[in-house]
Amino acid sequence: MRQTELFTKTRKEAPSDEVAKNAQLLIRAGFVHKEMAGVYAYLPLGLRTLHKIVQIIREEMNAIGGQEVAMTTLQDAELWKQTDRWSDEKVDNWFKTSLQNGTEVGLSITHEEPMTRMMAQYISSYRDLPKYPYQFQNKFRNEARAKSGVMRGREFLMKDLYDFSRTEEEHNSFYTAARDAYIKIFDRLGIGEKTYITFASGGTFSEFSEEFQTLSEAGEDTIYVDEKKRIALNKEVYNEGVISKLGLDKESLVEKRAIESGNIFHLGTKFSEPLGLTYSDENGERKPVYMGSYGIGPSRLLGTIVELFADEKGMVWPEAVAPYRVHLVGLNLDDEETRDWADALYNNLVNAGVEVLYDDRVEARAGEKFADSDLIGIPHRIVASKKGKDAGTYEVVERATGEIRNLTEEELFADFTS
Amino acid sequence: MRQTELFTKTRKEAPSDEVAKNAQLLIRAGFVHKEMAGVYAYLPLGLRTLHKIVQIIREEMNAIGGQEVAMTTLQDAELWKQTDRWSDEKVDNWFKTSLQNGTEVGLSITHEEPMTRMMAQYISSYRDLPKYPYQFQNKFRNEARAKSGVMRGREFLMKDLYDFSRTEEEHNSFYTAARDAYIKIFDRLGIGEKTYITFASGGTFSEFSEEFQTLSEAGEDTIYVDEKKRIALNKEVYNEGVISKLGLDKESLVEKRAIESGNIFHLGTKFSEPLGLTYSDENGERKPVYMGSYGIGPSRLLGTIVELFADEKGMVWPEAVAPYRVHLVGLNLDDEETRDWADALYNNLVNAGVEVLYDDRVEARAGEKFADSDLIGIPHRIVASKKGKDAGTYEVVERATGEIRNLTEEELFADFTS
Repeated sequence: MRQTELFTKTRKEAPSDEVAKNAQLLIRAGFVHKEMAGVYAYLPLGLRTLHKIVQIIREEMNAIGGQEVAMTTLQDAELWKQTDRWSDEKVDNWFKTSLQNGTEVGLSITHEEPMTRMMAQYISSYRDLPKYPYQFQNKFRNEARAKSGVMRGREFLMKDLYDFSRTEEEHNSFYTAARDAYIKIFDRLGIGEKTYITFASGGTFSEFSEEFQTLSEAGEDTIYVDEKKRIALNKEVYNEGVISKLGLDKESLVEKRAIESGNIFHLGTKFSEPLGLTYSDENGERKPVYMGSYGIGPSRLLGTIVELFADEKGMVWPEAVAPYRVHLVGLNLDDEETRDWADALYNNLVNAGVEVLYDDRVEARAGEKFADSDLIGIPHRIVASKKGKDAGTYEVVERATGEIRNLTEEELFADFTS
Repeated sequence: MRQTELFTKTRKEAPSDEVAKNAQLLIRAGFVHKEMAGVYAYLPLGLRTLHKIVQIIREEMNAIGGQEVAMTTLQDAELWKQTDRWSDEKVDNWFKTSLQNGTEVGLSITHEEPMTRMMAQYISSYRDLPKYPYQFQNKFRNEARAKSGVMRGREFLMKDLYDFSRTEEEHNSFYTAARDAYIKIFDRLGIGEKTYITFASGGTFSEFSEEFQTLSEAGEDTIYVDEKKRIALNKEVYNEGVISKLGLDKESLVEKRAIESGNIFHLGTKFSEPLGLTYSDENGERKPVYMGSYGIGPSRLLGTIVELFADEKGMVWPEAVAPYRVHLVGLNLDDEETRDWADALYNNLVNAGVEVLYDDRVEARAGEKFADSDLIGIPHRIVASKKGKDAGTYEVVERATGEIRNLTEEELFADFTS
């Protein structure tokens, strides 16, 4: 993509009411647009990044047997009354609206109820189990405050996967597979090292739940980390009893701020019982289906990645999710020969299948271009200048490390198309 | 995908309150799930089909310079007051809700206003124009009745593209390109022949607007078609004056029912003026941006395709959007050799990159399998049976024509992997 064609531009300032670093940088770089507090539109660079995160998650969900669906935003109140989650006293962040005939409907805060009801149409026998539907779908939560940028929106994208299993044992076996898939996802996104499986308070069906917490000063959670054992405890379960139960040592636990970047739950029969999701087993006996749920928010991950890697100059994208792999910055483009030379490299890279953003602006000064490039945070910057043309080389700068190399076109292609 | 792994199953009956043929068949075949009237979830087969429609549209939008974004569902009331579209007297199908602090917000009925306001941040000079953002995003319309299945939902997916141009001339030139792109989309979807550019009533900035109308008895519109000239008139402009103005002949116009499958609009400065979207031209003069909008609904197209091609046995998908290209139906799978033989073909086809749904159910009878296969409507059925194994051939049946061929594995691969 040529930058002169891209409709977004960088900005010096984010909106004055935007306090989160992730949103400030994403807005300044033209990745997102703030529609209102906690509600962000995704612009071309941001949407490319979001789609890459989604695709990584999709691949890992498919790999463990997930089947993709898309549930709805509008929610039938009657369904949520059956699990006692409709009343504002029970769930205080519903957005509610109504049909023309006055029937109340809600906007999806989450999807356990509709997913369970939908699956009930397809599950009757043990032969129909286990099954693993998942989706990428917007959730709507009427947060009183929305100060964390894209990490906690009033409208945000969520991947939610569910397991519908015959027994606790069958559920547990999938739970382990999903847990491993989450570890792979964080690794592929480049935040595996900073992400800890963290014990938190459980529900009816388990003593603890497990969260994935990613270390960051911008996080809303406090956790206690054992770095050697790569395990952490959420503050809510941080006490002598739990520490000793888990075989940990208080001395090795360090307090950290962290972002909850994923969570996995044993749901047991919490939803299947009230919603009547049962199956007949090998002996013809009706039994409630055993469930689990597995959440991860692509838009929150996008914000988390910004928070984790950004430096004083701007964002720093890991290769796997960067909107483009290469930022080709053309200098001295008012010189026709230099422009032809830079254009040719752009075309050759694109034809070789390399994703390139090309700063082909003629008027912008070099300093402005470098500042924009640092802000946008594409992993590899290739500078094509008159001086480089005369020497027959391009300057390649790594965004993350600042490492600089001068490469010929041949060396460049060996590097970027291998 | 093995059918024993797919969580959906076919059903004999659709919900009794579902009157539209498209929704009846899509529900019976397990493509969609009805959450409430006019609100449908997409299940694995339906979502695959929807994604294919989306991808065709995306490719054609990118080909004319479109840049993909994703605007939001939650809408700022203040913005819509500026164009006088917030009041329920002006727009009677809003879903409205409110933030915790009482501020009213709406659910996106359409996106001209937020798109215009967002673009205003990036447009200041003639150098910033023209630009073409587009998106796939849910729209919410509080329809009093919802009787047309996925063709007119209360929540539905829409592709909307906008042009932001310097002048009417520049806008018109893009309008022509977008119009041509739409023709390509309908052709690629397999409904080009049945789709007519149709003159309808215009707005402030043009005498007529143009709609794409696809002939179908299930349509809500009445149009008058000149089949030779491949032009039509919407009933609302069907009068002597217009007919002669367009150089048509009343005798050649035939009344037909049709589905509005796309529309393209000259918006002029209808949104840019009230929302203050201006640019400074080459002489430094401020001018309002000239706009157009281009809508097409992937979920409505999906319903339209069902309506157009379905027969008494079920759905008939065109190759380009079918959830799978091949439906491999295994018979006599209780015979181990036959099962191994069918399994081997499945694996070989998948490894060759062919999209295959494999009916690997052992218990189901042949008649049941064929009825399900007809209902689901995948273009090519390959039957692997004991009889076929003994003869060394597979029966290939075309869903659209019923044509039957007996092919060896070699002939089959020549056909499906070339």
